[in-house]
Amino acid sequence: LYRQLEPGAWPDQGLSPANRWICALITVAVLVALLETEPAIRVGREPWFVAFEWVVGAIFLLEYLIRAWVAVEGARYAHPVWGRLRYLGSFAAVVDLLAILPLFLGLVGMEALFMRLIRVLRILRLARLGRFSKALRELGHAVRLRQFELYVSFGLAFLVLLTSSIMLYLLEGGVQPEAFGSVLRSMWWSVATLTTVGYGDVYPVTGLGRFFAALTALSGIGIIAMPTGIMAAAFSEAMQKNRREKD
Amino acid sequence: LYRQLEPGAWPDQGLSPANRWICALITVAVLVALLETEPAIRVGREPWFVAFEWVVGAIFLLEYLIRAWVAVEGARYAHPVWGRLRYLGSFAAVVDLLAILPLFLGLVGMEALFMRLIRVLRILRLARLGRFSKALRELGHAVRLRQFELYVSFGLAFLVLLTSSIMLYLLEGGVQPEAFGSVLRSMWWSVATLTTVGYGDVYPVTGLGRFFAALTALSGIGIIAMPTGIMAAAFSEAMQKNRREKD
Amino acid sequence: LYRQLEPGAWPDQGLSPANRWICALITVAVLVALLETEPAIRVGREPWFVAFEWVVGAIFLLEYLIRAWVAVEGARYAHPVWGRLRYLGSFAAVVDLLAILPLFLGLVGMEALFMRLIRVLRILRLARLGRFSKALRELGHAVRLRQFELYVSFGLAFLVLLTSSIMLYLLEGGVQPEAFGSVLRSMWWSVATLTTVGYGDVYPVTGLGRFFAALTALSGIGIIAMPTGIMAAAFSEAMQKNRREKD
Amino acid sequence: LYRQLEPGAWPDQGLSPANRWICALITVAVLVALLETEPAIRVGREPWFVAFEWVVGAIFLLEYLIRAWVAVEGARYAHPVWGRLRYLGSFAAVVDLLAILPLFLGLVGMEALFMRLIRVLRILRLARLGRFSKALRELGHAVRLRQFELYVSFGLAFLVLLTSSIMLYLLEGGVQPEAFGSVLRSMWWSVATLTTVGYGDVYPVTGLGRFFAALTALSGIGIIAMPTGIMAAAFSEAMQKNRREKD
Repeated sequence: LYRQLEPGAWPDQGLSPANRWICALITVAVLVALLETEPAIRVGREPWFVAFEWVVGAIFLLEYLIRAWVAVEGARYAHPVWGRLRYLGSFAAVVDLLAILPLFLGLVGMEALFMRLIRVLRILRLARLGRFSKALRELGHAVRLRQFELYVSFGLAFLVLLTSSIMLYLLEGGVQPEAFGSVLRSMWWSVATLTTVGYGDVYPVTGLGRFFAALTALSGIGIIAMPTGIMAAAFSEAMQKNRREKD
Repeated sequence: LYRQLEPGAWPDQGLSPANRWICALITVAVLVALLETEPAIRVGREPWFVAFEWVVGAIFLLEYLIRAWVAVEGARYAHPVWGRLRYLGSFAAVVDLLAILPLFLGLVGMEALFMRLIRVLRILRLARLGRFSKALRELGHAVRLRQFELYVSFGLAFLVLLTSSIMLYLLEGGVQPEAFGSVLRSMWWSVATLTTVGYGDVYPVTGLGRFFAALTALSGIGIIAMPTGIMAAAFSEAMQKNRREKD
Repeated sequence: LYRQLEPGAWPDQGLSPANRWICALITVAVLVALLETEPAIRVGREPWFVAFEWVVGAIFLLEYLIRAWVAVEGARYAHPVWGRLRYLGSFAAVVDLLAILPLFLGLVGMEALFMRLIRVLRILRLARLGRFSKALRELGHAVRLRQFELYVSFGLAFLVLLTSSIMLYLLEGGVQPEAFGSVLRSMWWSVATLTTVGYGDVYPVTGLGRFFAALTALSGIGIIAMPTGIMAAAFSEAMQKNRREKD
Repeated sequence: LYRQLEPGAWPDQGLSPANRWICALITVAVLVALLETEPAIRVGREPWFVAFEWVVGAIFLLEYLIRAWVAVEGARYAHPVWGRLRYLGSFAAVVDLLAILPLFLGLVGMEALFMRLIRVLRILRLARLGRFSKALRELGHAVRLRQFELYVSFGLAFLVLLTSSIMLYLLEGGVQPEAFGSVLRSMWWSVATLTTVGYGDVYPVTGLGRFFAALTALSGIGIIAMPTGIMAAAFSEAMQKNRREKD
């Protein structure tokens, strides 16, 4: 049973059957929690959602207790009493508990939603296995190698953001106080423009404002995309290393 | 005749003259079907469209019968009776039939449109030739090599999408119930923002919502673009391999 | 004089002083023509614009005549009479003439504007010099090497465009006939979405339409960007080759 | 004291403790200046902002005087009188002075804001240290290597911008004079489209205008992104070189 539940103790690659079922159940529970927020789906089906929530809660509670029971089989929590208590105090077990608690405490509303969604975190914990954790470690290494680049490009991106916000505040602040009346407000425009999202809720209307906005858009887009480009390169490098080692 | 019609049996590179004409006719038929959906073009010209549809249908029917007749010349469908029947049951022949059927069954409206557009698929079938199919196979191989990367990046992209939807639902749901009243609804905003499409039909209006939206846009864009970036790299690698082998 | 005017005959790298002045004058003339279209700038200053146009026209006419006169010094147009006539019939000379003509024919309005802007083409002709033309040739070579990739990726991009347009037409055509009432109309939405421009003048409103639009946006963006990515790679490769040869 | 203040004189890598504190103070002062422009934050808290501004101004004045006093310890400004005067005339000292001046001259409004934001420049000056300045020099070198590519791609980008603006002016100028009534005005649309920002404040409405706009969007996006792509490649190359030299 311990080998089935503890990700690190499973001898083969990948997840054990028991953990696979738990992952699947978590995914379903998260999706149901998302659907439950939509009034058009919830209204009239509340009893079903409540029943589902109790069934899932019961299964997770059972899983939590079994995990605590078998924890002593691992080397870290070997002591029959203190080992189990120390396991219950570990980060993984606290996350598990937080994901069950709201139901039994009768919590409703936002706090409960938030805690139910903590279950997503549980998938990550279960998935933190051999190959995946190695890839993560290599990603961390690749990012650390480029940290100087990241600092410089973040600095440049922030400078571009700041400059364009200040310029648009100076040029458009008088005409559109609602949208550009402070540097903070024109930062909303700057982010929307430099990331090329461009909602169109705010945009410059004066000639000079438009000229500078066009200049910003043409020159700044590449600079804002630089940090994410460096991250993507680090990610791809780490993955290639992981692939090569696997071969 | 068989060599003209069966793509795999044509000795030279590329398509045989007969298949080229059929490809061209399919393209024209698809374009006409698209134009027919536009009321400004259709109204007053219905007889022309009907006549065109019948002429094209007749040609495709003829082609279908000839293909079934000559199928026995290939090694796979050699038997005079069963070979032909088995050919008619093959995927390629069923697609051909589906593309002709709606006309003769007197179908109209959406189903008919959908089936007429199946003709686009026929081009793919005819084009599935030497070099093209080799490129496809190599593309599949390149994608399989990166499947772990794809899983991880899809997971990350989904996590970013989920997190930003939940945050915006919590922050803006109360002020704009129509746009952010459920996690599903705020996912529409998340997709529009993280892909940088930014229609501008929904956007945060509260200060905290805007702050988090800006953070999401700045950090999440690169993560959402990662799966497509990996696919593009796989495509480019497969094409280069294909090119090198050709030289 | 011939050496000054004929780009290919100038012994040094770059442009001769005379051609530099002409390039500068063309740039100024084009910018003035652009400014002239703005009513806020034109109104009240028409005489100045007309005078400028006549002065520039006179200079370009003079240049045209001198070019025709000295053309015989080159090997291609060596004959005193036929050489000059053949020069006047060459593509370069016709472009030069078209750029002068509208003024002397008293043309006004759009045709005149269009022809005056032909002057931009003249810069290209003058610039078609040693290093630049070599870079262009290498760009052409790099593109030709990738023509198969370009075909495949254009085909994929067109397929994605078509599929998403047809789906949105089927899903949203009934609710928003103005925006999605035909496949042609929903193509306008498709292009705006897949290029991530996202004006926001048309967007899906039904649940299913939004779901499919989100799917399209997430998966299709990388595919639409593939042809331009291949072109950019070809451009960068050609430039690097050009740089290496220069060293 | 001199070693603490003069970035170049600090023996270790990175910034001296004194300069770190000054950098932090500048950052805080800049952020406060940004927040002060927001009426919702400023109103009712003016005395606090004024007090903060005076305290910061006093610290910066003190720093300015100490820097001038200890400047003589460096080789460049060794002379007790002329050295200090020459230091005060140096670019760095003038920037420092400009950042303090507005407070003591009683300036208010935009000029004062602009000058207070000059402080951002001061961070750059302090940060212009060993490794950072080497990275900058290498970035400059990498850009210079690619200057020909940059010229060509800027030229192409400008041509695409010009062509699409002229076409949309010709096709849409009659229907929407406010948005496309001159080439300058339709340039605003062109920039918003080609950078994929797409605010949606202006967009073509005629069939032909939309057709051409779609064509522009599909073909032009890659070309507009080329200069920034070249810059990003140069940046990444310079950073890699810097990293390799550090190892």
